[in-house]
Amino acid sequence: VKFKEELQEYKNKIDKKLRYYLELELLNAQKISPENEKIIQEIINFSLRGGKRIRPILMIKGYEVCGGKVDEEIINASISIELIESFLLIHDDIIDKDDRRRGGKSLHKMITDWKRGKHFGISSAIIAGDMLSSLAFKIIIESKFSDHLKLKALQELSTSLLECFHGEFYDVVLEKKDEEEEELLKMIDLKTGSYTTKAPLIMGGILAGGSDYELSILKTYAHFLGRAFQMVDNILGIVGDPTVTGKPVGSDIKQGKKTLLILYTFKKVNQKERKFLQNAIGNRRLSDEEVVRVRELIRKTGAVEYVKERASRYKERAKEALKKMKHQEKVTFLYHLADYIVEREL
Amino acid sequence: VKFKEELQEYKNKIDKKLRYYLELELLNAQKISPENEKIIQEIINFSLRGGKRIRPILMIKGYEVCGGKVDEEIINASISIELIESFLLIHDDIIDKDDRRRGGKSLHKMITDWKRGKHFGISSAIIAGDMLSSLAFKIIIESKFSDHLKLKALQELSTSLLECFHGEFYDVVLEKKDEEEEELLKMIDLKTGSYTTKAPLIMGGILAGGSDYELSILKTYAHFLGRAFQMVDNILGIVGDPTVTGKPVGSDIKQGKKTLLILYTFKKVNQKERKFLQNAIGNRRLSDEEVVRVRELIRKTGAVEYVKERASRYKERAKEALKKMKHQEKVTFLYHLADYIVEREL
Repeated sequence: VKFKEELQEYKNKIDKKLRYYLELELLNAQKISPENEKIIQEIINFSLRGGKRIRPILMIKGYEVCGGKVDEEIINASISIELIESFLLIHDDIIDKDDRRRGGKSLHKMITDWKRGKHFGISSAIIAGDMLSSLAFKIIIESKFSDHLKLKALQELSTSLLECFHGEFYDVVLEKKDEEEEELLKMIDLKTGSYTTKAPLIMGGILAGGSDYELSILKTYAHFLGRAFQMVDNILGIVGDPTVTGKPVGSDIKQGKKTLLILYTFKKVNQKERKFLQNAIGNRRLSDEEVVRVRELIRKTGAVEYVKERASRYKERAKEALKKMKHQEKVTFLYHLADYIVEREL
Repeated sequence: VKFKEELQEYKNKIDKKLRYYLELELLNAQKISPENEKIIQEIINFSLRGGKRIRPILMIKGYEVCGGKVDEEIINASISIELIESFLLIHDDIIDKDDRRRGGKSLHKMITDWKRGKHFGISSAIIAGDMLSSLAFKIIIESKFSDHLKLKALQELSTSLLECFHGEFYDVVLEKKDEEEEELLKMIDLKTGSYTTKAPLIMGGILAGGSDYELSILKTYAHFLGRAFQMVDNILGIVGDPTVTGKPVGSDIKQGKKTLLILYTFKKVNQKERKFLQNAIGNRRLSDEEVVRVRELIRKTGAVEYVKERASRYKERAKEALKKMKHQEKVTFLYHLADYIVEREL
C-alpha cells in the first residue's frame, strides 16, 4: 500500500512539472499563431492523459539509490525521459497506424480530426515528436547539475536512443518474417530495454554521481526489468482489460505485433489452427468473433502462462541484481516496482 | 576563385568525416541484421549524395572568426549540423510528399522502392530522421571541447531546433491560407534562419569561446543571411535549372510552397490569371504546359527581380553586420559566402 501511495505521489509531482515545461512551449506558440497554440495544446493533452510515469520514476529512483537526495532538480530532469516516451509513442503510432493510445486517440488521430485531413495529422505528429525530443535534451542541458554529470547523462540518453532506433528498424524489417525467440529478445532489448528501463535508471544514477559499480548493478536490473516489462505489456495487449490498457480489444492482434506470446502459440497449435492464425494476425479487418477465437487459441496453448512465467523469472533476476547494492534500505522501492510491473492487472 | 576552392576543400573534409560517423552506425547495424545494415546504407547514400555542406562550413567559420584554430575537432563537431540537415530534410520530404531530393530520390522513396510498400518506406524514414537527430547531439556531447562550451553549444542547438519546429508547425497550418508577407518572413526566420544559419555560426562561435559581442554580430549576420538564402532557394525552386537544384521542374509549384515569389505574383496578376494560379499552385497533377504558364506569369510580373532585389538587400545587411568584427582578415570568407549564396546559379 505504501508503495502504491509513493508511486501516486511521484506521478502527481511529475505531472505538474511536465505541464510546466510543455506550457513554456505553449507561450512560444502563442506568439506565432492561434493554430500553433492549438497544436501545442493537443500535445499537452496527449502527454498528460494517462501514463504511469514509470520512466521518470525510474530516473528519480536511480538517482536516489546512488546517493542523491530527491529534490526539485532531479524531478525537473526526470521530465526529459517522459518527453522521450511521448515522442517515441507519437512516432510509433504513426508507424503502427494506431489510432488509439492511453484510452483516447493517438496524437496524429487527434489532429487528423481537426478536419484538415489525415496527412495534416500525420505531418503535425511527426513534427510534434521531433519537438519533444529536442525539448527532452534541452531540459537536461539546462538542469542545475554539474557540467560533467550532465554531459555523461546526455551521452547515456543519446546512446540509448540510437540503440532504440536500431531496434525500431529491426522491428519494421522483421515484419511478416518468421522470427525466432532469440530475434524477438534482441528486438525487445534494443527497442524497450534501452530507453524504458536502462536510460532512466542510469541517467538518474549518473546525475547522483554513482560509481561504475553502482551503475553496472542498475544496468543489470534494468536489462531484466525491461524484458519482464515488455512481456507483461504483450500479455496485456492481447488478453488485458481495454479500460486498463487504454487500447481497444484485439489491437495488438490486428496490428500483427510480434510477441513471444504469438510465437509460442504458433508452435503449439495444429495445422488448421495455424492457418487460421496466419490469416488473422496482422489483419486489420478482423471481426470481433475472430479476435475472440485468436485469444482462445492463445489461452488454450498455455502461452499466457509460459510468457508470464518467463516475465517472473526475469523479474527475479532483476531483483537478484539489486542485492549487491550497498544501501539496501534505499532499494526497497525498486524491488516493489519490479513486482508491480509484472503483477499489474494480470 | 580562391573562395570556391576553399569551399570545395571544406566539403571534401566534411564528407569524409560524415561518412566516418555514419559508418560507425553501419557497424552497429551489421550486428543486428542484414536488413538493418541495408537501411543504414541507404541513409549513408542519401546523406552523402549532393548537398553543399553550407551548414557545417558556417559552423567551422563561426569557430574561426571567434578565434578558433580550424582543426580536426571542429570539423568533427560540424558533422552534427549536417546530420541535423539530413534529419530535417528526410522528415520534411515525408511531410511535403516529395519524392525527389538532391538529384535523386528522397529517403522514404528510396526505401519504398525496396518493394515492401510505401508505408514501410515512410516508417523507415521517420526512424532514420530520429536516429540522425540523436547522432547529431551525441557527436557534440562526445567532442573534445570543454564541458562548459559543449553544453552552451548544445543549448544553442536544442533551442534552434525548437524554434525550427515551431516554424514547421506554422508552415503546415499556413497551408492554403492567404498569407501576408509578414507571416512569410516570420516562417522563414523560424524555420530556416534558426538552424540553417544561426545555429551553425553560433555553435561554432561558442566552441571557440567567442564573446557575447562576437556572437551577437554573428547572430545578425545569420539572421539576414538566412532570409537571403531562403529567398534565393525559392527562386531556384521555381525558375532554377533542375540539374542544379536536384528537384524536377515545377515541383515547388505543384507542392504549393508558400513563397514571397508567389505572393508577389498574386498581387500583380489580373483576375483571370489569379483564378488560373489559384487552381495551379499546389496542384500535383499540373501538366508541363501549365507549369510553363505559371512560370511565365511569375516572370511577367517581375516577381523574380523583386525577390532577387530583396535577397540582395538582406545580403548587404548581413555583410554590414560583419564590419563590426575585430579581426577583419578572418571574416573575408563570410563576406564571400554571402555573395555566393545569393549569386549561385541565378
